[in-house]
Amino acid sequence: MNFKTRYAAYQEAVEAYLNSLFSKQEPYGKLYEAMRYSLLAGGKRLRPVLTLEFARLGGLDWHLALPYACALELVHTYSLIHDDLPCMDDDDLRRGKPTNHKIFGETLAVLAGDALQPEAYRLMLEAPGLSDSSKVEAAHLLTRASGADGMVGGQVLDTICEVKDAEGLTMLNRLKTGVMISAAAELGCIASGMPAERRKEAVTYADEIGLAFQIRDDMLDVVGDEQVFGKPIGSDKEEGKITFVDIKGISGCASEVAACTERAKAAVADWPAHDFLFSLADMLVERNK
Amino acid sequence: MNFKTRYAAYQEAVEAYLNSLFSKQEPYGKLYEAMRYSLLAGGKRLRPVLTLEFARLGGLDWHLALPYACALELVHTYSLIHDDLPCMDDDDLRRGKPTNHKIFGETLAVLAGDALQPEAYRLMLEAPGLSDSSKVEAAHLLTRASGADGMVGGQVLDTICEVKDAEGLTMLNRLKTGVMISAAAELGCIASGMPAERRKEAVTYADEIGLAFQIRDDMLDVVGDEQVFGKPIGSDKEEGKITFVDIKGISGCASEVAACTERAKAAVADWPAHDFLFSLADMLVERNK
Repeated sequence: MNFKTRYAAYQEAVEAYLNSLFSKQEPYGKLYEAMRYSLLAGGKRLRPVLTLEFARLGGLDWHLALPYACALELVHTYSLIHDDLPCMDDDDLRRGKPTNHKIFGETLAVLAGDALQPEAYRLMLEAPGLSDSSKVEAAHLLTRASGADGMVGGQVLDTICEVKDAEGLTMLNRLKTGVMISAAAELGCIASGMPAERRKEAVTYADEIGLAFQIRDDMLDVVGDEQVFGKPIGSDKEEGKITFVDIKGISGCASEVAACTERAKAAVADWPAHDFLFSLADMLVERNK
Repeated sequence: MNFKTRYAAYQEAVEAYLNSLFSKQEPYGKLYEAMRYSLLAGGKRLRPVLTLEFARLGGLDWHLALPYACALELVHTYSLIHDDLPCMDDDDLRRGKPTNHKIFGETLAVLAGDALQPEAYRLMLEAPGLSDSSKVEAAHLLTRASGADGMVGGQVLDTICEVKDAEGLTMLNRLKTGVMISAAAELGCIASGMPAERRKEAVTYADEIGLAFQIRDDMLDVVGDEQVFGKPIGSDKEEGKITFVDIKGISGCASEVAACTERAKAAVADWPAHDFLFSLADMLVERNK
């Protein structure tokens, strides 16, 4: 199966799984609707795809890893909803569509985000066919990746603290974006019971593509096409945020993205089946959205 | 050990445990400080006390249940921080002190609440001396109690939907407050491996004292002493919210609180050691804050 076909198969399974959630009628006004609006707003589904591929590479029927993969997407989605709030980045558009609070109001946007967190853990803890020890390890990993010393810490650095140098920016990106991408790969390893050495390599791979992803994101904020990118170009500059482009320049960023990609590939180069991982790394370098 | 001494021992252990959290220096501005501000703002610690007592009654060294008990308090605390936000109830005071966003600003208040959720699950999943199957069951219970069909659903009813009758009000209170109080009792049963029949009785007890608690709260909003109660008297009326007092009147509420308390006691009357549970139920009837 070639890269595009496999990626599409993963993506389709993720969409179907997410679409099955919060779909019944409920009496709490539009809570489910608000949760689904952002959950089903598309996107590359990079994180769940990573989980599913590493689950497959570890020898598991990857469908069994869908609850872990999608739990991560729920947490990612809650963070986007809250990031866009007026008291955070105050964004009107996300992936080219009005942000959650623009449609449902601020109260419901906060609550939809709040509810997505426990629902994410619920999916993991209910995962059919996976052991209790796997569930405990997986859920614990997600708590660390998304908590005070992970994603939320990164968001605090992004919104409250003035990050002024390369070191601070690297930490911000590591916490806000990197740890969740690494967790995605590691969750697939946990689901499939991957040996420790392979798991370490998987995390290195994900660390490197995560960094490449973020640097590419900063580049697209300068040289991207707004219609393709799905959010306003130049918004980082407008918000006075320092980016990798400020520090390294566009060509320096391009070199760094290439270097990260090479390091990512090197980490898994001796795996018997690394084609998908290589293509995925390349896709992130070349992406325009 | 009499009721007051035991309650104080539980409370002290809970405070010490909570006080040990998020205490190191961290680089994310005041995130930890904001989390600790609300976490250590006092309160009765009713939920963790329930967990610890049911853990003890089930034959466990109750100290082992502290991570479950305090996880619940973290989730309860996040809900209070978010409930007080300008886009929710817009409250300036909580337990007689400025609310979180009044001290730390709205951005950090949202993020402190966001971080408390994964940290709660982290505590549960790391609980020393408890089995993986216990952790999975306990964390799963907390996801259901606090998620879209639990506490957050109740908060949506409270803030977005216009609840107009006794049925709606009962559902609102059940979701917003009741399920978390019942979960507190059940978590103690899970930690100690309580037999199914006893567990059912524990939940009935907690359901009834939870309802009594909420009706008493509505009464105190009308007849309470602001200095003692810790929040403005008459705020429900001011916000146009329907309460149990509107439906049953003050004396009707008093009768209902008494009836709930009797039903709570009846559920555990044949337990060999029910003294603490009886005294706790009585304490909630008589409370002024």
